[in-house]
Amino acid sequence: MENIEKRNIEILESLIEAGNEDDLHDLLEAMKADEIVHAFSHLNKEQRALLLDLISSENGAKLLELVPQSQAVQTIEEIDNETAASILNELYSDDQVDIIAELDEEDANAILDEMIPAEAENVRKLIGYDSDCAGGLMVTEYLAFEADMTVGQITAELQQKADVYEDYHVQYIYVLEEGRFLGVLQMRDVVLSRGNTKLRSIVNTKAFTVRDSDGLDDLIEFFHKYDFFGVPVVDEQEQLLGLVLRRDVQEAESGRSNYEMLETQGIVGGEELRTMPVLLRSKRRLSWLSVNILLNIIAASVIALYQDTLEQVIALAVFLPVISDMSGCSGNQAVAVSLRELSLGVVKPYELARVLWQEIKVGLINGVVLGILIGIAAFLYQGNGYLGLVVGGALAINTIVAVSIGGTIPLFLKKLNTDPALASGPILTTVTDMLGFFLALTFAGMAMGYLV
Amino acid sequence: MENIEKRNIEILESLIEAGNEDDLHDLLEAMKADEIVHAFSHLNKEQRALLLDLISSENGAKLLELVPQSQAVQTIEEIDNETAASILNELYSDDQVDIIAELDEEDANAILDEMIPAEAENVRKLIGYDSDCAGGLMVTEYLAFEADMTVGQITAELQQKADVYEDYHVQYIYVLEEGRFLGVLQMRDVVLSRGNTKLRSIVNTKAFTVRDSDGLDDLIEFFHKYDFFGVPVVDEQEQLLGLVLRRDVQEAESGRSNYEMLETQGIVGGEELRTMPVLLRSKRRLSWLSVNILLNIIAASVIALYQDTLEQVIALAVFLPVISDMSGCSGNQAVAVSLRELSLGVVKPYELARVLWQEIKVGLINGVVLGILIGIAAFLYQGNGYLGLVVGGALAINTIVAVSIGGTIPLFLKKLNTDPALASGPILTTVTDMLGFFLALTFAGMAMGYLV
Repeated sequence: MENIEKRNIEILESLIEAGNEDDLHDLLEAMKADEIVHAFSHLNKEQRALLLDLISSENGAKLLELVPQSQAVQTIEEIDNETAASILNELYSDDQVDIIAELDEEDANAILDEMIPAEAENVRKLIGYDSDCAGGLMVTEYLAFEADMTVGQITAELQQKADVYEDYHVQYIYVLEEGRFLGVLQMRDVVLSRGNTKLRSIVNTKAFTVRDSDGLDDLIEFFHKYDFFGVPVVDEQEQLLGLVLRRDVQEAESGRSNYEMLETQGIVGGEELRTMPVLLRSKRRLSWLSVNILLNIIAASVIALYQDTLEQVIALAVFLPVISDMSGCSGNQAVAVSLRELSLGVVKPYELARVLWQEIKVGLINGVVLGILIGIAAFLYQGNGYLGLVVGGALAINTIVAVSIGGTIPLFLKKLNTDPALASGPILTTVTDMLGFFLALTFAGMAMGYLV
Repeated sequence: MENIEKRNIEILESLIEAGNEDDLHDLLEAMKADEIVHAFSHLNKEQRALLLDLISSENGAKLLELVPQSQAVQTIEEIDNETAASILNELYSDDQVDIIAELDEEDANAILDEMIPAEAENVRKLIGYDSDCAGGLMVTEYLAFEADMTVGQITAELQQKADVYEDYHVQYIYVLEEGRFLGVLQMRDVVLSRGNTKLRSIVNTKAFTVRDSDGLDDLIEFFHKYDFFGVPVVDEQEQLLGLVLRRDVQEAESGRSNYEMLETQGIVGGEELRTMPVLLRSKRRLSWLSVNILLNIIAASVIALYQDTLEQVIALAVFLPVISDMSGCSGNQAVAVSLRELSLGVVKPYELARVLWQEIKVGLINGVVLGILIGIAAFLYQGNGYLGLVVGGALAINTIVAVSIGGTIPLFLKKLNTDPALASGPILTTVTDMLGFFLALTFAGMAMGYLV
């Protein structure tokens, strides 16, 4: 596996250097999608640009559809405008817009100027939409006919323009009444009708539509409820604008949850690929780390306030990092469950009290168990049961607080319209670090006579 | 919003208590999918069972398709076998199998015995497949005809059984040659052909198929490469077994990445919903926490080895938890990027050296920046520049190590066929805690003369 992949990359590189178009075409045809994605990410800027120059714009478009979007954007930036435009011409409208929206304005306009005018105009119209609403997710490659046309007429039209429609999503035919959306036909309705039947007489006018301004949540909700392949998008005047595919909604949904996953681990500002410049990667990670180190130092300052206690019971210094870390772990479990429940819709931001109670119950059990475990460790370390009680008691109480905060803070942040995936972790650990240190050192102060 | 939702739940509950079937039906019809999911998760066992008894099995099936799968399973367990069977009869074969596979054997058999024999037999056939392979993901509701039939014959058949086929995924018609898969027809091929045309003469025999044993990665790869709605599944003898829909592959993929996300945060053994029993939730979380506390105690024992040093420079105790926490944060960022790159396929498990080098570069920059920040804090705290150097130097070096380990360990674990999402975090933090404590305390020992 490893050797085949490495050889593929080497062959790809040498064909690019040699400018061997035919063999390149054959190689790409023979490689699996996943091998192409992998090999492409190993090429440097110049090689990528050369490759896209060498292959047809159609194959270039297929390639850019395969690779992660940030890489597609990067690549479009690196090649000349003419090649970029001819590749973009081949993409579906939603992919065109996704890529062009990421370019700086100058590049975007230069490329749009080189594109087929109708395609460019379409992109300029669509680019105003937020990428997570129906207008931003829709494709404009759909079939629509006026209601007065007959089955025979549209069959003829379909046959005549078969090459254009080949790539269209032709599960549905939309029927219009003077440009306004009237209803939908399925291919099988056409199959089962005579040639002279007017579309008006067979159209299903009870078809659902969504508004161009509808958000991703509405669309997820829609496709959750209805088992459709796609849904037509209309504007305020019921003019048909495009078609949102289930596939694209699912992709947007999974993109959002990946983004969320990366955020909980401190990757902010979008997906990081290691092919991105080191300074950009470093800067993005630091933006989160530097907030975190500040919060950490604030939390640790609690320890500084109890330096006297600590000096007398130095053994506590061994357990403070454990208390801090374990409380973070317990709390983050609760954060993960809340983020998941929020995204499944089984819990709502206003249900703080309910979640709090559900977490307190788990926190009680887990706090006691973890408290006993660390208490035993502390006892064994110094042979002093009171040290065990101090450390175990602090962790037990802190665990209950940690899961309570962990479970509720995502709901609270969501209520405030803040991003719960990003902020929950840092807030949680700051609070539980401070409280954990405070509890352990205060308990130690109270039990001082038995500890030294 | 809040009030409407609360009222919906109350109305739902009172209609269930009253056993008012008609109003229940109207209410469910009027509620949005997302409201139904939310309200359903607020019902208790008895209410859920009553609800499913009251509504039609068709509506019951729709309901169970909406809610998270673990909840659907739980609900099926709670209702009587007859109702369960009649609801399961209405589900697509893949959903039937997903639910029945989660039941214990006795329940499963009891329900299967109550199901329509053909449906039950189908489930028994499918249940042997792993849920993440083509056989486990396919539906068996598809259209297939022998190649010798004519367009007219199948059109008549479609018209006649319109009610059965209504729910089928009829974008494609599969053509068989004595039961063996021959090729595929699209509805439009049928539209454009005369009634007396034999399927054999218009069938596309270059159609792709997948094998029932093909795994999820193969299917993701397939739908990545080809823009199809679904793909036929065949066995070794090229017998047609079913149809895998793009939608179901996307759902399985996003399920896997959610599972991974939960694992990185310490939720193991499957999705946790707060409606699950407290003891189960507690036990699952503890299974991960108790491993972690052990690792934490092992790491902290490094501090115990240097107790003398710490006694002399008690100020270090303030910074040890910061070093531990920050190294964990930096390392987890690298873990997240690696997990993401692995799942995108832009990096392969054997490319350890490449990733290591890419992480060392980021680690150098971020290590220096974070080291300076904590160094300044340490200097300000005690007015001692050497303390700043000791603490800052330890964090700087430890950050480089943390991102190097964080970036490479998921690849390493993947190479060993271990689950990288689950184990990367704990291994990372144990190593970096130990090293961080070791560095800080060793540096302090070396600079002891300047610190006290």
